[in-house]
Amino acid sequence: MDVITVEPGAGEPTRLERPRPEPGSGEALVRTLRVGVDGTDREVIAGHHGEPPEGADRLVLGHEAVGVVEKPGGTDFAVGDVVVPTVRRPPNGSNAYFERGEPDMAPEGEYVERGIAGADGFMAEYVTSPAEDLVPIPEDLAHLGFLVEPVSITEKALEYALASREPFEWDLESALVLGNGSLGLLTLAILTDVLEVERAYCLGRRDRPDPTIDFVEDLGATYVDSRETPVPEIPDVHEPVDLVYEATGYARHAFETIEALAPNGVGALVGVPGDWEFEIDGGRLHREFVLHNKALVGTVNSNRDHFEAAVDTLGDLPDWVFEDLVTGVYGLEEYEKAFDERDDVIKTAVEFDSL
Amino acid sequence: MDVITVEPGAGEPTRLERPRPEPGSGEALVRTLRVGVDGTDREVIAGHHGEPPEGADRLVLGHEAVGVVEKPGGTDFAVGDVVVPTVRRPPNGSNAYFERGEPDMAPEGEYVERGIAGADGFMAEYVTSPAEDLVPIPEDLAHLGFLVEPVSITEKALEYALASREPFEWDLESALVLGNGSLGLLTLAILTDVLEVERAYCLGRRDRPDPTIDFVEDLGATYVDSRETPVPEIPDVHEPVDLVYEATGYARHAFETIEALAPNGVGALVGVPGDWEFEIDGGRLHREFVLHNKALVGTVNSNRDHFEAAVDTLGDLPDWVFEDLVTGVYGLEEYEKAFDERDDVIKTAVEFDSL
Repeated sequence: MDVITVEPGAGEPTRLERPRPEPGSGEALVRTLRVGVDGTDREVIAGHHGEPPEGADRLVLGHEAVGVVEKPGGTDFAVGDVVVPTVRRPPNGSNAYFERGEPDMAPEGEYVERGIAGADGFMAEYVTSPAEDLVPIPEDLAHLGFLVEPVSITEKALEYALASREPFEWDLESALVLGNGSLGLLTLAILTDVLEVERAYCLGRRDRPDPTIDFVEDLGATYVDSRETPVPEIPDVHEPVDLVYEATGYARHAFETIEALAPNGVGALVGVPGDWEFEIDGGRLHREFVLHNKALVGTVNSNRDHFEAAVDTLGDLPDWVFEDLVTGVYGLEEYEKAFDERDDVIKTAVEFDSL
Repeated sequence: MDVITVEPGAGEPTRLERPRPEPGSGEALVRTLRVGVDGTDREVIAGHHGEPPEGADRLVLGHEAVGVVEKPGGTDFAVGDVVVPTVRRPPNGSNAYFERGEPDMAPEGEYVERGIAGADGFMAEYVTSPAEDLVPIPEDLAHLGFLVEPVSITEKALEYALASREPFEWDLESALVLGNGSLGLLTLAILTDVLEVERAYCLGRRDRPDPTIDFVEDLGATYVDSRETPVPEIPDVHEPVDLVYEATGYARHAFETIEALAPNGVGALVGVPGDWEFEIDGGRLHREFVLHNKALVGTVNSNRDHFEAAVDTLGDLPDWVFEDLVTGVYGLEEYEKAFDERDDVIKTAVEFDSL
């Protein structure tokens, strides 16, 4: 079967032949339909993140997949069920985090990540997976199934942000998304269309005309050009916001978030920057945290509950969101196009097969 | 009646004669028993924080009070009920924060604080208060009632910190208190004796012999001298901790907290520093936030629910904690002693009357 692999740091993925995997006990064989491409894939390809399975020199890419059950094996699935696999697996046997359904809370060493670090991913015509790591999705959402994983990241981040505001009566009326990549834009759509946030803003640094700016405005949100309005100036130029969702990996933004928040607001951080030293007015930021009851909450990965919530969320979003957001789905013969980076590319996927 | 007042910046409080206040409609007249002294009082006295009521040039001090109802007025209290007043009051009529019982979430301009900013405090032989701002406390705790307000600050901070960890199965096994002032030590006692945290640490910068170090060790906790072990080194020297409670107002600590936390840990910030610019490795801290699901939660003040929880907590702590913590209770004739700052002073109060 065909797989798309990467030799870390090689700078581009390679299509190879591999034997079709044999499902183990309690595993299903899944025929892959589509696999999304995101920033993490690009970092793995560039060699900045991730690693092949132990002893291998190549990694099969892909952690945003949707497929159809071909052989249920001993699982409760039926042939033809559409499923989305979760990403983390236990490294050697199981551990407490996996046993209680919270692999997303496992620290380093307690997990591998399929398609990212230590385990082959889903960019293969067939994959195997234990039943508990496969999340069912309605057949009519199969074409969008590769968006379940990224949306699950936001489900988790928002769950944690909202939990931190649970002790009081919080009105989430305004929100700011930092970053106009596909995850930022998906999150913006969730904020405006599912959570019904009244006033939403999205930060980018693009000139018009630009499809991401069009997308922001079609959602009824306001585009903020960071070259004109740095994050700390957003409260004056627009308004202080109840929620900030940071999806840039730009470390200054994590701390500027405190300044962009309205009293009693919360910032959700999901970006992963490298080391970077810089100066902050730590006294002012600390004081802001305390005197205005603010919070910053970092989250990574997601668990089965977040995947299930993401399936519901995909069903709640209008079709035009996906039509505008998914700028390309490419067959195996032109898979390279799915990895292109241009300003008119928002979200892409590789299509391995159809239902 | 006698009151203890301060002219902001005068550097020391002054005892004055004032007319006994007349309770308004819905207000009770309360005969004051004891009023605690804390760091905020010292900042008000030094002129770094707070302000007199509008139009006045002096402020009656005191926001940590316990008293006994002398005239219930139209309230449901009975003569002799022991009560603790809350601190915030609406500035002009009420507002939504007060109406829903969350004055602690009100932003500037939406509240005054008795004994701190814009309203006279409780260091007076008699005070008046609306019934809804008086929290009943059992008579056998009356002598400790001046500790309800500081404990309520910790009740709120811990409520918010724990709420942020609600989405997953969190084991609070280790905790670090930054600061060995009275609030830090009270919080340490709550962590070890009420929340039954297995391993607790308290940071200070004192040489032995020292009563705060003795107190830390009598609780079964470990004293950490910040001159020997800076906060970022605590994970290596001791262990990364599940919870950090910052009660220093030292801004570097707010950010070092991220490094001291174990994966999935949370830092509660309650200190209030002035402006201070310094360098951080913001990239590393941002990454730590995200890859290890960490959170920082700032909180200020407390509401009636936190006062009620604090009353319960005081009842749960052993007597020796208060015997060691309260190093002086001084009558009106020697009230100045309650404001002394020495290494053998932990917590003091002025006694206006007894039950």
